[in-house]
Amino acid sequence: MNRLHQALDGLLGRIDTPAPIVLADVVQDNIDRMQAFAARHGLAVRPHVKTHKCTEIGRLQIAAGAVGITAGNVGEAEVFAAAGFDDIFLAYPVWPAGTKAARIRRLAETTKLRIGVDNPAAIDALADAMGGAPDRLQVVVEVDCGARRSGAPPALAGDLALAARRRGLVPVGVFTYPGHGSSGPEARERAARDQEAALVTAVRSFRAAGSTADVVSAGSTPTVAFSTADVITEIRPGEYVFGDLNNRRLGACTDEEIALFVAATVVSDWVPGQVILDTGTKALGREGNPEIGFGAVAGTKGVLAKLNEYHGFLALPDGAGRPAVGTVVPVVPNHVCPVVVNFEELIVTDRTGTSLRRWPVDARGFLA
Amino acid sequence: MNRLHQALDGLLGRIDTPAPIVLADVVQDNIDRMQAFAARHGLAVRPHVKTHKCTEIGRLQIAAGAVGITAGNVGEAEVFAAAGFDDIFLAYPVWPAGTKAARIRRLAETTKLRIGVDNPAAIDALADAMGGAPDRLQVVVEVDCGARRSGAPPALAGDLALAARRRGLVPVGVFTYPGHGSSGPEARERAARDQEAALVTAVRSFRAAGSTADVVSAGSTPTVAFSTADVITEIRPGEYVFGDLNNRRLGACTDEEIALFVAATVVSDWVPGQVILDTGTKALGREGNPEIGFGAVAGTKGVLAKLNEYHGFLALPDGAGRPAVGTVVPVVPNHVCPVVVNFEELIVTDRTGTSLRRWPVDARGFLA
Repeated sequence: MNRLHQALDGLLGRIDTPAPIVLADVVQDNIDRMQAFAARHGLAVRPHVKTHKCTEIGRLQIAAGAVGITAGNVGEAEVFAAAGFDDIFLAYPVWPAGTKAARIRRLAETTKLRIGVDNPAAIDALADAMGGAPDRLQVVVEVDCGARRSGAPPALAGDLALAARRRGLVPVGVFTYPGHGSSGPEARERAARDQEAALVTAVRSFRAAGSTADVVSAGSTPTVAFSTADVITEIRPGEYVFGDLNNRRLGACTDEEIALFVAATVVSDWVPGQVILDTGTKALGREGNPEIGFGAVAGTKGVLAKLNEYHGFLALPDGAGRPAVGTVVPVVPNHVCPVVVNFEELIVTDRTGTSLRRWPVDARGFLA
Repeated sequence: MNRLHQALDGLLGRIDTPAPIVLADVVQDNIDRMQAFAARHGLAVRPHVKTHKCTEIGRLQIAAGAVGITAGNVGEAEVFAAAGFDDIFLAYPVWPAGTKAARIRRLAETTKLRIGVDNPAAIDALADAMGGAPDRLQVVVEVDCGARRSGAPPALAGDLALAARRRGLVPVGVFTYPGHGSSGPEARERAARDQEAALVTAVRSFRAAGSTADVVSAGSTPTVAFSTADVITEIRPGEYVFGDLNNRRLGACTDEEIALFVAATVVSDWVPGQVILDTGTKALGREGNPEIGFGAVAGTKGVLAKLNEYHGFLALPDGAGRPAVGTVVPVVPNHVCPVVVNFEELIVTDRTGTSLRRWPVDARGFLA
């Protein structure tokens, strides 16, 4: 990952740390690679925007062939809809209270909107929210494939489709999230198989209830390489656009595919075997554990052993040089999604660190 | 903590979840209590704004008698300076590269500004940044009292004061942060004693080098109750304004003093012994561990056992009722500082949930 040092060198003096640096050429390669993979397997790509929260990156994904986007909450969907994204799957069991009911109705009027459902109460609440026009809202039934998170048992997908139809909503298919595929490299393929089995059962259940599952939607970056079963129509990966150390450890991305790092400055060096970086939880989030650390300096064995909010404790391996106060280093995060939302804008450059643009993190701060 | 449920009941229908709810009357009590404690012990209060990032709350602190504020980075300081705060201690070893040099110089012209230093290179860099007017910048020497983070050995404080004077800066005193006082209840008093010892040594070292330490500044909410030694002139607590479960576990605050919770909705309930809340790491950060969990529902034994970004896995204790989908619950965070910066504004009410105001989180997103 010395290429990250190279990109950083080009930027020195032009940035303030901590800063989220994105290599636009690597991002484009990641986007193109995912589209090519999907095309080879007859899958549509519907990337999850929670990872980048950035309409500029969303536009690159659509331009490369994505069929639309996936969002995680109403606000996120609204930001992208306002920016012209007209095909949005809100892959979340939204409970339409407060202002969400009216906002969902408004979104459904201006955008091709699909919302996830996993229980009858939410189906009723969404139908109520749509007032006299429930047929404007497509719903996608969420089933659990082993992540034990949200999602109905796959065999009950048809019942939920029926409940939706009775209320005038339009059930278009099923989705799931193989979250248990992130626990280790061997877990990826197993979770993908669970995902396939769950989706097959759910589709069968839909058919038995008199509905057609036109949409059979699968997640995630760690499992996508194994998510090529015939039953699946679309994939919703998010993290692939940047990559991170968790995905590299899982084998879901390579070092060269990592497109985001946080530029950090050494600010203190009194404690032996350690220096302090200005990158803490307020920049990186708290993703990791004492074994793997909380982020690493690219191209070195230096690992962030501990984080306070504005201080990163960089453990220096034996024999390693001791970077002087004022040195700027590239910190690669374990999990990239929490990093992006800590910043107002991404500092966008290329592998050589020559270009410098700023892309707003448009949908940061939108959680409801 | 049934009072949090009471406040929440008043707000139902008027808020979208996840939402950060602040009880303004409890905040005021916390502010007043800290001032009264400080007054009893002849201490000045200089609260750390990183916890609330909110100029409205900063104003309440100044109105109650705080001598100024503490900030953690240049951007944070600028936001508060622009809002009229004219006495700011940037208690951080800032490295003045990029735009920071000019911004520090500008701040020093318009505000009474102090900056932390812990090494000679940074002292030189700050003096360079101040151009022809280094005497406009007061510096406070940071010493380590056992947190093993930033800070010089206390006996070297005088050397750093001398280095600052030689460059024309104005060394006004010393500060430290007893971070090792947060590891457990018994650690609080021990860390406070370490803090006192370090500050006494540092003050002595200043005097021996021909400087006077007018400012002897101590931190933190967990240790402040024990930070009453004669040598200390000011305290820099941050978390006391809201409280949180970590501080309650340490004995540094009580249940009744907790003034912030996150309103969360139950969105899924398929897995036995668990429901899913719409409060994940993007709302709470990731603060906790599998033993204590990652947040708790006030007034119940329900604990968030696991967090994904938009999903909170609420473990239901045996025999506990199973809240239906659509139920809104108050989630108390383990560590309050990471929560606030996930939101654009705080939803401010009172113990009864009657009033509803919105206070912008003005300095969110400012890290550099």
